[in-house]
Amino acid sequence: MRIAMIGLGRMGANIARRLMRAGHELVVYDRNAEAVDGLAKEGAIAATGLEDVKAKLATPAVFWVMLPAGGPTESTITDIAALADAGDVVIDGGNTFYKDDIRRAKELDEKGIHYVDVGTSGGVWGLDRGYCMMIGGPDQVVRDRDPIFDALAPGIGTIERTPKRENFDSRAEKGYIHAGPAGAGHFVKMIHNGIEYGLMQAFAEGFDILKSKSSDKLPEDQRYDINLADVAEVWRRGSVISSWLLDLTAIALANNPTLSNFSGNVADSGEGQWTVEAAMEEAVPANVLTTALFARYRSRVEHTFADQVLSAMRFGFGGHVEIPQ
Amino acid sequence: MRIAMIGLGRMGANIARRLMRAGHELVVYDRNAEAVDGLAKEGAIAATGLEDVKAKLATPAVFWVMLPAGGPTESTITDIAALADAGDVVIDGGNTFYKDDIRRAKELDEKGIHYVDVGTSGGVWGLDRGYCMMIGGPDQVVRDRDPIFDALAPGIGTIERTPKRENFDSRAEKGYIHAGPAGAGHFVKMIHNGIEYGLMQAFAEGFDILKSKSSDKLPEDQRYDINLADVAEVWRRGSVISSWLLDLTAIALANNPTLSNFSGNVADSGEGQWTVEAAMEEAVPANVLTTALFARYRSRVEHTFADQVLSAMRFGFGGHVEIPQ
Amino acid sequence: MRIAMIGLGRMGANIARRLMRAGHELVVYDRNAEAVDGLAKEGAIAATGLEDVKAKLATPAVFWVMLPAGGPTESTITDIAALADAGDVVIDGGNTFYKDDIRRAKELDEKGIHYVDVGTSGGVWGLDRGYCMMIGGPDQVVRDRDPIFDALAPGIGTIERTPKRENFDSRAEKGYIHAGPAGAGHFVKMIHNGIEYGLMQAFAEGFDILKSKSSDKLPEDQRYDINLADVAEVWRRGSVISSWLLDLTAIALANNPTLSNFSGNVADSGEGQWTVEAAMEEAVPANVLTTALFARYRSRVEHTFADQVLSAMRFGFGGHVEIPQ
Amino acid sequence: MRIAMIGLGRMGANIARRLMRAGHELVVYDRNAEAVDGLAKEGAIAATGLEDVKAKLATPAVFWVMLPAGGPTESTITDIAALADAGDVVIDGGNTFYKDDIRRAKELDEKGIHYVDVGTSGGVWGLDRGYCMMIGGPDQVVRDRDPIFDALAPGIGTIERTPKRENFDSRAEKGYIHAGPAGAGHFVKMIHNGIEYGLMQAFAEGFDILKSKSSDKLPEDQRYDINLADVAEVWRRGSVISSWLLDLTAIALANNPTLSNFSGNVADSGEGQWTVEAAMEEAVPANVLTTALFARYRSRVEHTFADQVLSAMRFGFGGHVEIPQ
Repeated sequence: MRIAMIGLGRMGANIARRLMRAGHELVVYDRNAEAVDGLAKEGAIAATGLEDVKAKLATPAVFWVMLPAGGPTESTITDIAALADAGDVVIDGGNTFYKDDIRRAKELDEKGIHYVDVGTSGGVWGLDRGYCMMIGGPDQVVRDRDPIFDALAPGIGTIERTPKRENFDSRAEKGYIHAGPAGAGHFVKMIHNGIEYGLMQAFAEGFDILKSKSSDKLPEDQRYDINLADVAEVWRRGSVISSWLLDLTAIALANNPTLSNFSGNVADSGEGQWTVEAAMEEAVPANVLTTALFARYRSRVEHTFADQVLSAMRFGFGGHVEIPQ
Repeated sequence: MRIAMIGLGRMGANIARRLMRAGHELVVYDRNAEAVDGLAKEGAIAATGLEDVKAKLATPAVFWVMLPAGGPTESTITDIAALADAGDVVIDGGNTFYKDDIRRAKELDEKGIHYVDVGTSGGVWGLDRGYCMMIGGPDQVVRDRDPIFDALAPGIGTIERTPKRENFDSRAEKGYIHAGPAGAGHFVKMIHNGIEYGLMQAFAEGFDILKSKSSDKLPEDQRYDINLADVAEVWRRGSVISSWLLDLTAIALANNPTLSNFSGNVADSGEGQWTVEAAMEEAVPANVLTTALFARYRSRVEHTFADQVLSAMRFGFGGHVEIPQ
Repeated sequence: MRIAMIGLGRMGANIARRLMRAGHELVVYDRNAEAVDGLAKEGAIAATGLEDVKAKLATPAVFWVMLPAGGPTESTITDIAALADAGDVVIDGGNTFYKDDIRRAKELDEKGIHYVDVGTSGGVWGLDRGYCMMIGGPDQVVRDRDPIFDALAPGIGTIERTPKRENFDSRAEKGYIHAGPAGAGHFVKMIHNGIEYGLMQAFAEGFDILKSKSSDKLPEDQRYDINLADVAEVWRRGSVISSWLLDLTAIALANNPTLSNFSGNVADSGEGQWTVEAAMEEAVPANVLTTALFARYRSRVEHTFADQVLSAMRFGFGGHVEIPQ
Repeated sequence: MRIAMIGLGRMGANIARRLMRAGHELVVYDRNAEAVDGLAKEGAIAATGLEDVKAKLATPAVFWVMLPAGGPTESTITDIAALADAGDVVIDGGNTFYKDDIRRAKELDEKGIHYVDVGTSGGVWGLDRGYCMMIGGPDQVVRDRDPIFDALAPGIGTIERTPKRENFDSRAEKGYIHAGPAGAGHFVKMIHNGIEYGLMQAFAEGFDILKSKSSDKLPEDQRYDINLADVAEVWRRGSVISSWLLDLTAIALANNPTLSNFSGNVADSGEGQWTVEAAMEEAVPANVLTTALFARYRSRVEHTFADQVLSAMRFGFGGHVEIPQ
């Protein structure tokens, strides 16, 4: 199948590579000409702009847009829409907010252009492990691109199969699902990332308590000096909390047991916030997902104004002077 | 009534003063002789040690111990117990953990000595405003010291009376209650402080959101530059959240609208932690009180190890490099 | 000053009454004719519709809209805008989302109509105690209506004055502030409600821990049977957590010490959610305000699906069968 | 190696079986004679009491106690201590609080008896998958029982190896670690369970938000009807959150997509609470682990008293009547 990849950053380039490995023909474009040349040397068809992309695609044309969510994705899809024909397909594989998908799908639908949103998990490991994909869009449009999704997904592999799956869509076992209409793919991916924040924070807090058990703030006979790298490793083996995030933690700790190569300024992309917004729209309590997000905000400032307000109150009622840090 | 005050720090000295103002006779002792001399000049009877205290008291003797919770209080009460007679009364007015009260009361009871625990709120303002007291101990022992508690409490004053209070103990309206047997006073005071942490954090977060609304991280047309001192002041007037903690915040903000005189290292005494422990023993969810406590822990470190674990994972799955602070 | 009140629910009617008591002339309108008649009997000028309201007002006309936020307010303001003249003033005194204020102010400004948003706290007590008001809008437009706000506010009264207030806007001491341009009033009111949720939850958790201390799940020698009404009352007297919300709790507990007249389905209006959204836009951690909101969601369902997922996992790894409730 | 298993519940019996499969000789005892007979039929040496156990063991004797934490474990170990010889080894494989381990180890050490604590994860799957073990105790005593731990652990298996592990203790890769002196094993296991609670709650909240996206409380064009079983399955394939707990969720959802076989009363064992206590002793913020624990408390009651307090306050300031559930 011939498909265009617009945006050749790490994710876009690797998705293109994995598709080429599976025998698909890739038309590639990026504002950065070097990125285009690099992929061309690996067998892709270089394009010089969106019109050139369109010219080099079959009918219906399939455009996979893999750009930062927000402005870059929005303007590129607008440009594609201006030159696409009815029946063409625009796939947004980035981290778009699902309500933007719903809006865009309506806009493109007026021109007969199909819109498909693909939430993609797998990060830097996806090229080799395959990408886990959550897809939103019209049923037939998604089904017609099955060779694309099938090639990108990890496949059934050696992972133990879930009993009774014969009653369900077999695509899920291969690593992709058609979650629903426009936006449903990014919605499910958004929740995935929300959960991811929660899982990460749970591990982070646990390791912090383990590490701080050696603190000299504790009475000497209540301290343990625990080897965190060994703990992470052993938990990978038969424990209830074995997981890929734990595998990564084990790798990081074996590499540097104090993690001194990380200072702890933790960014968040939009998905964590959107997950909390979705929870509030549904009146679903989401304490863990929210507090995990807030821990990241907190990690990025030395002191909050809230802390200062607390100090001011304590001085006010008790004459308490701040403790030195 | 003659009573001894052991421990003449800010709290002990002011309680002694308020009692003397009400006509009580105070025998005072502190390891720091200057503190004793100071109170003596104000009319107290100076004592040179616990035996001297005992000698200068009537029978039954009443010892009010006002020392830091833990070691100092524990050892002093042990020393008093060694020289007290059956029928004497030991009052612990500090911030003792209520389970220590229960244990101590049993120990002293074996010698016929009565133990009374008094949780005291009022801080530096108590000398003039009066102290709010939550008392635990044997009913008659507490009743017999009513003149003491009555003198220390704020009294009914000008605070609007709660309807239907005629069905309840009138002492509460004067500012003190007999909460139950040994430990009950400190238990109620502990919960008071737990609530206090939650209230403080609620205000702190709210003011932080107000202040950060002027942040240049926001789009320019979504910023407000709000006068926080005026906000604190107006909320004191007829709003649902009017409270003494808000009064104190208004004072602090009127004094320094940026609170730049506070860096935000916020200490916690034991009560917040004990409140969470009590909640867990009872299986009562206490999310707000707990998160308020944790915010103080967090205020005292620049980065947690948890933050570093998060950064390490993000690098692991996404190749994300930390954002600069 | 002559002013129209559109919307004569409890809040609107009481605001009209308080204004009339201060000598202002009120033109009143509500879809419910009985409500109009009622106010007319108290001295207001009855109007039969918005055009009639406009006709009965001076120039510039001042419309105070006091309707449920969202649809009712939106459509009424649209209707007013259609018949108002340049220089007229529309005041939204309801619980509007501040971003709606910003949008509306722009729309009305194109016709030369002034828009003022007023966040109002005081509830059912406002008629007598006065209303605490947070105002957004153009400076001169707000200043020109000072007699209105002054009449509604509680005034300085007997509340102790904050030191150093002489450097600040004197309106705050009377109980109203001009917080900034359009939306700023409702923004500050929104934060007020966010804080209110946090304060309420802190008290609620604390009283829950006190009450559950008598639970027979605890060992018998660790139980206290604490009189909650007395505790609420005593904390009103000189304690750090004295506040109006505590006063209300004391009233409720004196009336019914088990609160058996309340089942605990707790509604939330939009402000709590909007406060969390504002915090996220600013990347400010707001754990207490958020968890307070989530506790309300949780209060309204018997079990969450999340609980069921937990049970399913526990069965999966441990064969744990659910405990009976 | 010959070893005694005291306590033949599901965990004890399976551990005994796995050891016998590896060629070890098991002396087994339980108050329940049927359980003993059952194991005897599978090849174990039946004992009629602790003295009989001791008689049938070699020197030094090794007792593995696998009983409910608290009373049963405590009294059994006391009984064993009374008949054990210096040099004998008592292993507590249950869920004991680590501070009890520290105390017990000291007590047994006075008699020359060695104490080893083993935190064991693996649940009902351990017999076949192997047990992940975290061990505390004297170094040589633990090393001398390596054949036991090696037999119980999962072994390296097919799990991808962590780079740079050659610098670390090789036991971790096989699925067990010697975490430190007495109590360290149970401490690490306790943190494991604390993390487990957090991970579970993160998944639970995420699936709740997914499910509630079909709620008719949402506007119709904002609903998705998402197949949760497919989502759980696809996330197992290459996503960042793949984990054993997700595998179990996928199994549960494939079996019953609405989880209607679970009502959602979620128990907690002591480890979650102890983890929070450890965090507080270390002043480490542990918001996620704590809120996960509190969600379980909340799952077990229909309404909290806290909810009623909120309702009472809302009625107090706003006249709000509770919404029907």
